[in-house]
Amino acid sequence: MDNHLEGKEGKRVEKGITPRKENYSRWYLDVISAAELAENAPVRGCMIIKPNGYALWENIQRNLDKKFKETGVSNVYFPLFIPESFLKKEEDHVEGFAPEAAVVTHAGGKDLEERLIVRPTSETIMYDVFSRWIHSYRDLPLLVNQWSNVVRWELKPRLFLRTTEFLWQEGHTVHETAKECDDKAREMLEIYRDFAENMMAIPVIPGAKSEAEKFAGALETYTIEAMMQDGKALQFATSHNLGQNFSKVFDVSFLKKDGNRGYGWQTSWGLSTRAIGGLIMTHGDDNGLILPPRLAATQVVITTIGKKEESVVKKATEIKNLLEDAKISVLVDDGDARPGEKFYHWEKRGIPLRIEVGPKDIKEGSVFLVRRDTEEKEKTKLPEIAQKARAMMEAIQQNLYNRALAYRKERTKSVDTWDDFVQAIEEQSFVLAHWCNEREIEEEIQRETGATIRCIPFDREKEEGRCIKTGKPSKGRVVFAKAY
Amino acid sequence: MDNHLEGKEGKRVEKGITPRKENYSRWYLDVISAAELAENAPVRGCMIIKPNGYALWENIQRNLDKKFKETGVSNVYFPLFIPESFLKKEEDHVEGFAPEAAVVTHAGGKDLEERLIVRPTSETIMYDVFSRWIHSYRDLPLLVNQWSNVVRWELKPRLFLRTTEFLWQEGHTVHETAKECDDKAREMLEIYRDFAENMMAIPVIPGAKSEAEKFAGALETYTIEAMMQDGKALQFATSHNLGQNFSKVFDVSFLKKDGNRGYGWQTSWGLSTRAIGGLIMTHGDDNGLILPPRLAATQVVITTIGKKEESVVKKATEIKNLLEDAKISVLVDDGDARPGEKFYHWEKRGIPLRIEVGPKDIKEGSVFLVRRDTEEKEKTKLPEIAQKARAMMEAIQQNLYNRALAYRKERTKSVDTWDDFVQAIEEQSFVLAHWCNEREIEEEIQRETGATIRCIPFDREKEEGRCIKTGKPSKGRVVFAKAY
Repeated sequence: MDNHLEGKEGKRVEKGITPRKENYSRWYLDVISAAELAENAPVRGCMIIKPNGYALWENIQRNLDKKFKETGVSNVYFPLFIPESFLKKEEDHVEGFAPEAAVVTHAGGKDLEERLIVRPTSETIMYDVFSRWIHSYRDLPLLVNQWSNVVRWELKPRLFLRTTEFLWQEGHTVHETAKECDDKAREMLEIYRDFAENMMAIPVIPGAKSEAEKFAGALETYTIEAMMQDGKALQFATSHNLGQNFSKVFDVSFLKKDGNRGYGWQTSWGLSTRAIGGLIMTHGDDNGLILPPRLAATQVVITTIGKKEESVVKKATEIKNLLEDAKISVLVDDGDARPGEKFYHWEKRGIPLRIEVGPKDIKEGSVFLVRRDTEEKEKTKLPEIAQKARAMMEAIQQNLYNRALAYRKERTKSVDTWDDFVQAIEEQSFVLAHWCNEREIEEEIQRETGATIRCIPFDREKEEGRCIKTGKPSKGRVVFAKAY
Repeated sequence: MDNHLEGKEGKRVEKGITPRKENYSRWYLDVISAAELAENAPVRGCMIIKPNGYALWENIQRNLDKKFKETGVSNVYFPLFIPESFLKKEEDHVEGFAPEAAVVTHAGGKDLEERLIVRPTSETIMYDVFSRWIHSYRDLPLLVNQWSNVVRWELKPRLFLRTTEFLWQEGHTVHETAKECDDKAREMLEIYRDFAENMMAIPVIPGAKSEAEKFAGALETYTIEAMMQDGKALQFATSHNLGQNFSKVFDVSFLKKDGNRGYGWQTSWGLSTRAIGGLIMTHGDDNGLILPPRLAATQVVITTIGKKEESVVKKATEIKNLLEDAKISVLVDDGDARPGEKFYHWEKRGIPLRIEVGPKDIKEGSVFLVRRDTEEKEKTKLPEIAQKARAMMEAIQQNLYNRALAYRKERTKSVDTWDDFVQAIEEQSFVLAHWCNEREIEEEIQRETGATIRCIPFDREKEEGRCIKTGKPSKGRVVFAKAY
């Protein structure tokens, strides 16, 4: 299953990775292929997630799941199939999802009486049940999450970013009060922000979505937005304050402390395999994938030099044990390939640190550690190797975050005229601009430039200004960009 | 979401659990409801797995996943949808699964050119891809697994045991030789056996399936079979030696070491949420669920006695900390309910150990630990509490296994005549009997008695005998039983 090296026209061709400047879309797919993360399935728009790709998803799951549970969330599982009538109950929701629906019309050898929708998201099927689970304020808050697959028919699929079927988690909560509900929606967004920035080393802008970009049926959608290396935005995760929109339709009502009946206040929040697409496009380079050490399934690879000499393999194993004792995940490559081939093999897979072990190193009692992100080498004596590896991994994690943040800042422009706006969007920047808060204007800007409002940042400064399109007054800048 | 106590007609009515002797099927559903494990979904045959039920599945996943990975297996994800033409390629396979298929005919607002089957199992979609992944013996063995949902339309659904959609893992491997393949199929069955017996405390009989009971498309199906408390068998997990049946159809071929081309030898193996049904029916009693400590998400519950006295709550927390330091999972119930209510609440949920803490206990500096399985109480001084709890949990784990094994032995009969056979099956025993190894006879026996061959045990004794139905010679006994 290895990608064997082909051709002798130099490093670039050998790796089979198109440089980003030549063709960014092609580069993205080449990295996925070279790092063996995923491939297209025989069914159009669907994806096969290969071991290297799934290991990333497992690490994402493990980390997020722990954080969710710390806030009191329990995991559950709701069915894949949603009766068509459920989806139709909330007006905005059906409008948003019906066009992308996959429909089961036939099952167990018979035509079905009611068509079943393969879940695009589970609000409707869950809230129908919540209405029977919740009776009084004592049953609140209800805090659940599920890890599952969902289906939204994609006309322009792209691995990880937009696939007909994708994996995700969807959390759903019900609260007594509007405030508690909004707090929860923001709390879950903060968990995503912390995860994106501290585990995945991806800087993000947290904020609220505009009317046109909100989730179908939500009162407020909160989002974290990341900049990819082509300057486009990726919506990394979202958290919705659904208000009482669904609870009124599905009768998620309860006896309040004051003796009256009220409708529950609800949130939902999700992160999907799309995050892996964001990871690739934030950190990868022309040599392939680059993994942040905290998320990498394999953090260090030890490659042997020279024909399988016993002393070399022994030393490699010794180093492996030293690192494993320090809770570092390690892999030894003592295969027959030439050192250069081995180097390329692990480089394109993005392993954060590489250690070369050859006869000369053994003689000297020290080895070189090589960073994937900067290609810097550091020599270290064996007794200090675990400590050194830890320190270098921390440096890599920090560097990946810092350089992504620096890149975003460099490519973010504050503009005040329509001409500057159009040019900045053409250059694929994040654009900070004033907007008059009207949905029609937002849609007009999108039609004319392809840019959408990515978010109204939580931490934006109050600033009197005039909408770049209408000149009407505005109280602060929003983030415009082209997006995935 | 609590089941509040109703009526005052005694313990049994209060708990709302039908006794096993009165109606075993009703008892099973009552336990699921009382322990809040799952409920029926609005879509017929589908299931909603509630937090208590899903926590069990998560523990099953965590344990098995670790064992799989120790054998070199990687996790992957293949699509939910299978083109209908794929399913049709292997003749036995399509015959086995087509009648239960759920079919997507319409997606993204259009009728599909090719109908898509919601996966009932993933052999066909995976092996089509394996044919492109595998080129030479260097790519073997291929060892992958996926955790996913599958759909098989059920006409007689029962929570956990038979649901239209269920959760499972399916492992798939490809090997160079027939021997390596069969060894792997048996190795994975052994992992299931070890898991069933040592984690879930469920004694099982490992063996091979007869021709009629094999997986659709397999050369050999290996199984572990457990006895439920009504004497019926539950197939707990299976591992299939698929031989070259699929590799020939899907062209999973490779360059052999000797320079010739050959077809891969394949296995697949799976365990599903059905295992939770087996758990309930193996250990549960008329008071509800009983969980083996090694699988329980909450191993100990501490219930306070008396109105929320500060000293009592403080002591409960102190005990909780002592136990948590010893890696025991604990929950404190310091709610306002009466001691009896609290006791019932946790009893029906199957928590292995309960500790009562009241003002009197504090004075004496000791507490009672109460076993869920035997209701035995043991007094212990606080400093020894973690050690004592550990020891009692080990005793519970052992006792659950031992009593299930004793029960199975008691209800297993060795018979030599047709009349005895019919009677033993009517009494719902496991029946050890000789059989002439003919498929038609097996099917005739099933038609007449409802019993099937559960397995040909690996460890059966060689014994000359005569088939109970035909009198033809046989070399050993097989296990007959009615089954779920």
